[in-house]
Amino acid sequence: MSSQYQAPLNDMQFQLFDVWQVQQHWQQVPALAEQLEPETAQAILQEAAKICEQQIAPQSQLADQTGVSLDQGEVSTPEHYKACYQAWCEGGWAGFSGDPEYGGMGMPKVLSMMLDEMMCSADIAFSLYPGLTAGACVTLQQYASDEVKALYLPKLYSGEWSATMCLTESHAGSDLGLMRTKAEPQTDGSYRISGSKIFITAGEHDLTDNIIHLVLAKLPDAPAGSRGISLFIVPKFLPDAGGKPGQRNALHCGSVEHKMGIHASATCVMNFDGAVGYLLGEPHKGLAAMFTMMNYERLAMGSQGLGAAERAGQNALAYANDRLQGRITERDANKAEPIIRHPDVQRMLYTIQSLNEAGRSFSTWVALQLDKAKYSGDVKGQQFANLLTPIAKAFMTDLGLECTVQAQQVFGGHGYIKEWGMEQLVRDVRIAQIYEGTNGIQAADFMLRKVAADNGAVLFSLFTDIGNWLDPSIQWHPQLATYVERTRTLTASLLNRSQQDKAVLAEFAYDFMTLTGYLLYGYVWLKQIDALQHADLPNEVKQQKQQLAAFYFKKILPRAETLLHIMQD
Amino acid sequence: MSSQYQAPLNDMQFQLFDVWQVQQHWQQVPALAEQLEPETAQAILQEAAKICEQQIAPQSQLADQTGVSLDQGEVSTPEHYKACYQAWCEGGWAGFSGDPEYGGMGMPKVLSMMLDEMMCSADIAFSLYPGLTAGACVTLQQYASDEVKALYLPKLYSGEWSATMCLTESHAGSDLGLMRTKAEPQTDGSYRISGSKIFITAGEHDLTDNIIHLVLAKLPDAPAGSRGISLFIVPKFLPDAGGKPGQRNALHCGSVEHKMGIHASATCVMNFDGAVGYLLGEPHKGLAAMFTMMNYERLAMGSQGLGAAERAGQNALAYANDRLQGRITERDANKAEPIIRHPDVQRMLYTIQSLNEAGRSFSTWVALQLDKAKYSGDVKGQQFANLLTPIAKAFMTDLGLECTVQAQQVFGGHGYIKEWGMEQLVRDVRIAQIYEGTNGIQAADFMLRKVAADNGAVLFSLFTDIGNWLDPSIQWHPQLATYVERTRTLTASLLNRSQQDKAVLAEFAYDFMTLTGYLLYGYVWLKQIDALQHADLPNEVKQQKQQLAAFYFKKILPRAETLLHIMQD
Repeated sequence: MSSQYQAPLNDMQFQLFDVWQVQQHWQQVPALAEQLEPETAQAILQEAAKICEQQIAPQSQLADQTGVSLDQGEVSTPEHYKACYQAWCEGGWAGFSGDPEYGGMGMPKVLSMMLDEMMCSADIAFSLYPGLTAGACVTLQQYASDEVKALYLPKLYSGEWSATMCLTESHAGSDLGLMRTKAEPQTDGSYRISGSKIFITAGEHDLTDNIIHLVLAKLPDAPAGSRGISLFIVPKFLPDAGGKPGQRNALHCGSVEHKMGIHASATCVMNFDGAVGYLLGEPHKGLAAMFTMMNYERLAMGSQGLGAAERAGQNALAYANDRLQGRITERDANKAEPIIRHPDVQRMLYTIQSLNEAGRSFSTWVALQLDKAKYSGDVKGQQFANLLTPIAKAFMTDLGLECTVQAQQVFGGHGYIKEWGMEQLVRDVRIAQIYEGTNGIQAADFMLRKVAADNGAVLFSLFTDIGNWLDPSIQWHPQLATYVERTRTLTASLLNRSQQDKAVLAEFAYDFMTLTGYLLYGYVWLKQIDALQHADLPNEVKQQKQQLAAFYFKKILPRAETLLHIMQD
Repeated sequence: MSSQYQAPLNDMQFQLFDVWQVQQHWQQVPALAEQLEPETAQAILQEAAKICEQQIAPQSQLADQTGVSLDQGEVSTPEHYKACYQAWCEGGWAGFSGDPEYGGMGMPKVLSMMLDEMMCSADIAFSLYPGLTAGACVTLQQYASDEVKALYLPKLYSGEWSATMCLTESHAGSDLGLMRTKAEPQTDGSYRISGSKIFITAGEHDLTDNIIHLVLAKLPDAPAGSRGISLFIVPKFLPDAGGKPGQRNALHCGSVEHKMGIHASATCVMNFDGAVGYLLGEPHKGLAAMFTMMNYERLAMGSQGLGAAERAGQNALAYANDRLQGRITERDANKAEPIIRHPDVQRMLYTIQSLNEAGRSFSTWVALQLDKAKYSGDVKGQQFANLLTPIAKAFMTDLGLECTVQAQQVFGGHGYIKEWGMEQLVRDVRIAQIYEGTNGIQAADFMLRKVAADNGAVLFSLFTDIGNWLDPSIQWHPQLATYVERTRTLTASLLNRSQQDKAVLAEFAYDFMTLTGYLLYGYVWLKQIDALQHADLPNEVKQQKQQLAAFYFKKILPRAETLLHIMQD
């Protein structure tokens, strides 16, 4: 009766190689062409799927029941997490996208995104331990000196050590400019960090020998506000001359939070009492460095929404096929039929699956833009990735809640009972709309910094690309083309209205981001339909995709009607 | 830091006496005119509010943490529930709407609905104990003999005894025709009941001396399916000659469920092993009798959605005023402003409050229809109540989840932490979309039995009444009038299409119910705006109402655009 999971490997391969043809990009990048072919990638995903399906997912409900506990500053994670973490690290997954120069595998984002999705289907709480480390590594790769990289990255890539990001303070929340944590320069070039941070994921735990905190703090001469924040490396144990964990640093976990979900993720209050830290990057430029990590995490948040929704949808589908209740075609009062034959149950299942397969396609597309920027220096790729990141974070997690709630609803009363595991998916995924910048903050980021800041230039260029690609012979083409045009007009009108009334952008930010999300999900559905023509897939899979696309265009995309109506004035 | 609650007594009075002018109905009914005037009603609501605000609500988080426990067939509720329950009964609230002939207070639904809302704001789990009893009493009032009424009703009205409804069996869920519980006739006129029921709210607990189970079961000669179900009274302790709890009946609680929320509500597996039961109503007609109770409960479900959303909204508003973060007008980087000044936070707060004040008005309207039917034999009142009940259950609970989630979002990370109480409101309210007939079942009931069955007659007559009332001088009038006309046309078209394709009704049932819900919330907003002209309210309250109405018509009612678009073919 517990919640099952099988990685959607076939759909992942379809998205990678048929829809987005990532192999074309790989062939242009020597570092990738050497080690990656579609067959290799498939084998990689299969291996990762095994751990997720067989080891992590079957114990996620146990993790939820057990949670974490704090005793004299030490945090205990569920007992089975040790074996899961070890298996993850032994498989080499911890350093999967890391810099090969320091022991990473150098794998592209299109693949690591799929690992993220599988991990989040298996157990969001568990995924956060390696997830935070991967994010911190991105910042270290970009901002640390060679010496610092050589000291930390191999240990982080192997999973021997883990990492955190310490931003939030209790009085300040997302308003980082209000930060009070102080960094005092020492004569040896190090700093003493003092202050208290809250909501620190994996701030303390028992899975690794050392924990490397990336801490935002203010230097004594810092300008006021967010332009005066610096970033520091603050290890739990200071590495000794041999690079091993040495002296215990003056920091400790003051408490762990009791939360709605992700019970087995340690959400810590971290107190720094003159802890030794090392400046990372330039003084006062810590926020930019931290945002490197935040942006990485934000994409991964989308995978949390998708991962939870995928597992929820799989279980709802299985339940709807198994559960006998009611009569649709059957007339015998003693015979019941599977509830999947009820049109309203189909509505819920189609909603979930059409959103999930669009979400997988969308996140592959965004990841490909990031890969193009990273491996090929593609400016447009970077621009599109910047534009799409807040949508990946907010829109995908909003839909993650919607889909897990719908899947829970398919179960009726059983959906509310812990034993079936569906309610946990709802509780676990809910956090993804909140952390790493609330979805409201994402919407403001999208509207103000990603659209209005360049007067819509990148968004319009994306619309133009979509318009140029759109093949009128594909079914549903006219629906999407019309919405894109209406949204283009609306965007111009909003930008124009904002000249007189700046508040108009903030007022409509959420609706505008959501509207764009539905349009882009429509685009990736057309991409999928187009790819079906040449894909080597069984006919029933192709028919299923066609049905899901039809559902999306008939029942989901019209959500744009309301959003357009609200914003048109 | 815990979640607060203050009963919205001013808005309740506005809805009762200014908007719906229930005093006009009371004056026409001698039984009500004698004992009820607006001042009496206000005093009654104030008294109920006191217990909810001061005793039940402050301990709802404790109730969530404690939950219920089962030991050798005995269920323990949280310790403080005893005092809460005693206070509730001593106040006379248990028999508030009961038949005065048997010791009830005979109060109208418009008032008991408001008690329901306050109780649900205070603690949904607690509210279920007296709530189930009140529902069972409605069935007993209607179907029991005078002798049976005299035996049970006074004890239930006083709260000495409580009651349950035992419908669901594990293999059958909502498909009651598949029921297996058997009732064997005995020579003394009683029956022996054998079978197992699941999801029995308050099936076993320690708050009362006796528990009266209303059990659906099949007689040996029962026809197949749902036409062969009878209803039985099965007391935990058989009343002795003096009407006191006597011999222990052969029934027991096999287990209690571990759930997402309402932890302190005992959700029991109840096993009947040849338990003594008494037929209630006619043989094989038990479903109709049970639906008397179900319909009562369905209205109360709407109050669960509203009650949780009201408390969530109050706390979100207070937090948004208190929490300093970000700068909107302030330029000093060290000074933060209350987050309520952020347009996106305002969007969330306005959404919650405009839906809540519409919900309160809507449920008062529905309750008034029920009162007109009950006290004045008003046929139209009964027709409208039947039509609107599934909307009250499903639409109000869907919005209950939306609003509690939005309120939680206002809190950012703190919304996810148990301590603040916001996540509990989300978990607790989620069940209301599921039990008492899932919202999908409500939608089918609305579309098929309430609209299609009479070819739209009652719905169209409601639309006509609304059209006749609509005053073009009220702002937002044209918006609503247009949607009503579009929906009238759509309804006719759907009914017409269903002649060829019966599935079309089931396919669009959920969207159609939701569309009707938004229209009717628009109607009750116009009723409120209209009532403001003569209401004796401070100007700031009037302005606030105007702003909420404007928000509803500009930002919420346009959700109808999508729904109309989906269903137009």
